[in-house]
Amino acid sequence: MSRLVRCGLVQCRVPLQADQAAPRQIKKKMIEKQVSFVEKAGRSGVQILCLQELFWGPYFCAEQSTKWYDLAEPIPGPTVKLMARYARKYKMVIVVPLHETPLPGVYYNTAAVLDDRGKLLGLYRKTHLPHCLPGFWEKFYFKPGNTGYKVFETRYAKIGVYLCYDRHFPEGARALGLNGAEIVFNPSATVAGLAEHLWKLEQPAHAVANQYFVGCVNRVGIERPWKIGNFFGTSYFADTRGKVISTASRDKDELLTADLDLDQILETRKTWQFFRDRRPETYTELTEMLP
Amino acid sequence: MSRLVRCGLVQCRVPLQADQAAPRQIKKKMIEKQVSFVEKAGRSGVQILCLQELFWGPYFCAEQSTKWYDLAEPIPGPTVKLMARYARKYKMVIVVPLHETPLPGVYYNTAAVLDDRGKLLGLYRKTHLPHCLPGFWEKFYFKPGNTGYKVFETRYAKIGVYLCYDRHFPEGARALGLNGAEIVFNPSATVAGLAEHLWKLEQPAHAVANQYFVGCVNRVGIERPWKIGNFFGTSYFADTRGKVISTASRDKDELLTADLDLDQILETRKTWQFFRDRRPETYTELTEMLP
Repeated sequence: MSRLVRCGLVQCRVPLQADQAAPRQIKKKMIEKQVSFVEKAGRSGVQILCLQELFWGPYFCAEQSTKWYDLAEPIPGPTVKLMARYARKYKMVIVVPLHETPLPGVYYNTAAVLDDRGKLLGLYRKTHLPHCLPGFWEKFYFKPGNTGYKVFETRYAKIGVYLCYDRHFPEGARALGLNGAEIVFNPSATVAGLAEHLWKLEQPAHAVANQYFVGCVNRVGIERPWKIGNFFGTSYFADTRGKVISTASRDKDELLTADLDLDQILETRKTWQFFRDRRPETYTELTEMLP
Repeated sequence: MSRLVRCGLVQCRVPLQADQAAPRQIKKKMIEKQVSFVEKAGRSGVQILCLQELFWGPYFCAEQSTKWYDLAEPIPGPTVKLMARYARKYKMVIVVPLHETPLPGVYYNTAAVLDDRGKLLGLYRKTHLPHCLPGFWEKFYFKPGNTGYKVFETRYAKIGVYLCYDRHFPEGARALGLNGAEIVFNPSATVAGLAEHLWKLEQPAHAVANQYFVGCVNRVGIERPWKIGNFFGTSYFADTRGKVISTASRDKDELLTADLDLDQILETRKTWQFFRDRRPETYTELTEMLP
């Protein structure tokens, strides 16, 4: 008997642009819009749902302005409590990526993981922060994450979260594998261009190295008034052999679902005995402050 | 002024099959054949050349028989000395993957690195050994490598070697990056089938994570009498953004060359500041004996 789990990813364009509305208005409208997708997922029998990175806003790290600090919430806060109601209603695990403030003036780029009864299972705080041109200025907004690479034991699967830029670092992806992840969600904010081919290279490579499933969410559309590029959607799932099995559109709001057979994990590991053959005693450079 | 380095990879079918000739005969014929490609590379202005894994034989790990032990050589031994003459003749760095015996009864799957004057710069001994069905039985033949992830400073570039199955482990690929590799060579023995898509997934992912070039060599053809599959050639180079820039045929003996511009490394790292953003203090699981 296979262990099928129906998973969902939501890619969702901001309904109001930052040059036409205040941050709080955008947040309110965006949450309303996302809730409609959460409801849709629940009605579609999704058992584990993942929203996009910093799900209630535009990707405001395209500029550096303290006004965006004001949207952050503690966890649990009003938005996590709202999502917990839907988790309970639909017996659906929900990964909620959001802007967290655990202490006044301290901010993280975080994902809250709610179980199928709406209970907060824990947090993953983004470990690796970008700060690049032309405007992925996360080191201005967030403190580097301090949670390590936690795996959350949900009713349906053991899941991990690895947020956007984290994916450039095979180390955390491996730690999630060692910690028992069966599915790793990677909510992202990635634009078209020179590095677009990485989108279906890095996370499938993590899936292969660790023989787990990955579910990758990207944003959709151009977010005004910033000029960092076009978020090209294309959210997808890849299987334990790194094959992309389901892909969303480049430009549409969308709930992408896939039924993942968790038995494929052990089946793949019977063929690829990579965990048997690791040589941890030779990896000392990786934990040193080099170069 | 760009720092162009002409690199070469040799994929080369065995001229005699193991069901028609004794191991020593095959070795002799195979070395003769490979020397013709080494000469061709030298005449083509190749500055760094890499041969295929266990270059003088068939991939004998398709069976488990002590008769193959007898082909192994110490380093330097006759074959490395022969290659050193060509290195000197053509001022060409040569990576020579071979079956090494440093002590009677001790064997490694090794690559010897010769500099452009024919001097032995050092060895890389394969760290991760496969032992899978239907016959990649390397744990029978070899001791797991003990050299770590050395980088060799040659006249033309800083190079590393990561042998075949090693590529399933992002850890060593990262260590090579941290140790300064500009080009990583990955001589392999890989057959067509279910896992074929990994061939252009894993090594380009290492190139991206570490922003170095990779040069990957595969064998060619079916090696009788074994039934482990068809070595599908397709040796290739990928650049520091993980883009495949040059690919050999699936089924022919071939010298593949590419001119790699080492300045692309720094250019890529100016855009992708992944080394800046690593978090070594969070990677502790990777060096523990887990799970």
